[in-house]
Parts: sequence; C-alpha cells; structure tokens
Amino acid sequence: MRHMATRTRLTPEQRREQLLAFGVAWIADKPFGELSLDLLAEHTGVSRGLLYHYFGGKQEYQYAVLQRLSDDLFEATAPVDHPDMVHRMRVSLENFVAWVRNHRTAYDEFVAVARGGGSPEVAEIYARGRNALTDRIFESATTEELAVYGIADSAATRLFARGWATMVEDVVTAWLDEPGDLTEDQMIDAFTLSLGGILGLVAS
Amino acid sequence: MRHMATRTRLTPEQRREQLLAFGVAWIADKPFGELSLDLLAEHTGVSRGLLYHYFGGKQEYQYAVLQRLSDDLFEATAPVDHPDMVHRMRVSLENFVAWVRNHRTAYDEFVAVARGGGSPEVAEIYARGRNALTDRIFESATTEELAVYGIADSAATRLFARGWATMVEDVVTAWLDEPGDLTEDQMIDAFTLSLGGILGLVAS
Repeated sequence: MRHMATRTRLTPEQRREQLLAFGVAWIADKPFGELSLDLLAEHTGVSRGLLYHYFGGKQEYQYAVLQRLSDDLFEATAPVDHPDMVHRMRVSLENFVAWVRNHRTAYDEFVAVARGGGSPEVAEIYARGRNALTDRIFESATTEELAVYGIADSAATRLFARGWATMVEDVVTAWLDEPGDLTEDQMIDAFTLSLGGILGLVAS
Repeated sequence: MRHMATRTRLTPEQRREQLLAFGVAWIADKPFGELSLDLLAEHTGVSRGLLYHYFGGKQEYQYAVLQRLSDDLFEATAPVDHPDMVHRMRVSLENFVAWVRNHRTAYDEFVAVARGGGSPEVAEIYARGRNALTDRIFESATTEELAVYGIADSAATRLFARGWATMVEDVVTAWLDEPGDLTEDQMIDAFTLSLGGILGLVAS
C-alpha cells in the first residue's frame, strides 16, 4: 500500500521517465530480452497494464528505451561553441569515445539488435540516430567553413560521412577492447583528419 | 532407385561440394533459416543422415556454406599481378563491388546473421573473412611499397584498415541501393585514395 501511494505521487510523464531510465540502466548490464514484465513490475512497481498504458506494449517500450539511448548519444556529442570546425569535430569525437566507453554493454546490445535484421524498428532507430550524427557534420558548419577543407555538402559526401562514421564505430569498439600502442589522442586525430580527407576526395 | 544410382556415382567430396553449392545458391534468394532438411533432401536427394555424415549437422552445414561464400569473396578480390600497389588495390575494390552486386542477397543475409549477435560461429567466420581481406593489404605489398605512401604495418594501421573496410562495406551497400550522382569510378577512387590517407595518418 505504501508502494502504491508512492507510485501515485508521480505524474504520468515522471512515471514514463522512470521506466525509460530503468530500461536504459537494465541494458547496461543485461540483454533487453531478459527483462520480463514480472521483473519490470518487481523493480519499478509498474504493472503490465500500466506499461501498456505508457508505451503500448513491451516491444514499444524497448523501442522507446533504445530511442532514449540514441538521443542521449546525440546530446553527448553535440558540437561545442567554437569557431574552428576541426576543433568542434574533435571534441564531439572525444565525447563519442567517452560515451561508448561508459555505455559499452548497452551500445553493443543496441548495435547487435539493430544490425541483426530481427527488428526493422530497431534498425530504423539505429540508422536514424547515426544519420543524425553524421548529417550534423554538415548542419553545424557553414558552406564556407566546409569549403576551406575542400568539402561540399552533397548526397555523395553524406554517403561517405556515414561510411566514415561506421569506421569510427568499428575502430572505437575494437580499440576499447584492445588499445595496443595507439593512444586515444592519436586515434581521434586520425578520425578527425581522415574525415576531411575522405569528404574532400568525394567532393573533388 | 534411379535417383539412388545417380547419387552413388558422386564421391563424398563431390557430394559435399554439391551441398555447399546448393546452400550458396539458396541464400542468394532466401534466408538460410527457411531451408529445412526436408527441402534440402527434396532438392539434392541427400537425407538428414547423410547431411550429418558430411557436415555434422544442419548448423555446421550453414557455417560451411557461409565459409564458402566468404572464401569466394576472398578469391574474387585477390590482388592482380601488377607492379603498382594502388592499381592492385583499385582492381580488388572493383571486384569487391562487382561481387557484392552479384551476391547481394546472400551477402546481406550473411552480414545480418554475423552482426546480429545470435551466432558467435557466424560472427567468427565473418570477422575472419574481413580480417583476411584487410590483412592482405599488408601482405600483398612490401614494406618499401607501403612506405612510399607513408604507411607502416602495425597493430594501429591494421585496426584502421579494418575500420576502412567497414566504411567500404557500408558505402558500397548504400550506394548499390541508391547510387545518386556518384559514379562507381568516383566511389572506388575515393576508397583507394582514402585508404592511403587514413593509414598514412595513423602511421605518422
């Protein structure tokens, strides 16, 4: 009863937030598939009926949790306010590496589900998130700034920017597992410089 | 009976080859999961017992089929005999694009299964194949040839070569879906030049 009383003090929005935060915390340790509605109820006090009320179902809840994770990555890597485009990119990359390091298990789970072909909805959340990250490269710089590095905004350069992001993802996760002699600074420098190099090649 | 007579004319090695070829042809159209042992028997005349005899089980058969596909890609992109390293790389990339175009459905199925986290064995076949492709960049060139482009063979450059390969994979599949204004030559030029650019950055 005390539990019930506590629950009712939360607004629907707060309750939704609590459930999202719980889901994000859950996938930091364990696959989403292991989270049963019974376990969810046990940990949050939210019944199956209320979960349906807030999200429409367990699957929709999963999508909302992964969307939250994706939004969190997007925010964590937002461009800082600095006049130099290369510096802005470098800081975003530093924040990307830090974020992946701190959310590694959840991130791997997300990527595995998204790429596994099992769920088009998750693949879509993942693709939209990654495209937002790479499109921001063009949206956070002026045409003139891009031109300094020989970069033009086009379908082809955006295609390669997404490819570059896949390289970054692949190298960062492999590097976190086995950094070897490569320092984080060296890796981030190579990312930053190769982006300009690749996009300059495509634009020319 | 006539069927039995035909079957017994094949040596075990020929029978194994026939089954592999059938599996590779199957995943060109349909997911491997839809290939039941009944369907396999119907199409090839090979019973469940014989499949176990040749491969040890249906799952092992799937691994052998995917390994065959991976080997085929590796052969299709073998370096040509030419003194210029950049030319060799360019021809390999042309052959890579052609191979993915011609094996698109099977390739997507392979990648989805490998990345989905469902099967460590398939992930391993996939990773081994890709690592073989990228390690060959270093193995098919001399230290002197690499040095001309400012490239050194190291754990860090191999890490980035694998990342570059992920970029190539991502861009090629997206480009095949929607080529836009980018010609195949332009794309392959950007791949070739960016490889030297990226590896040169890491080595420096």
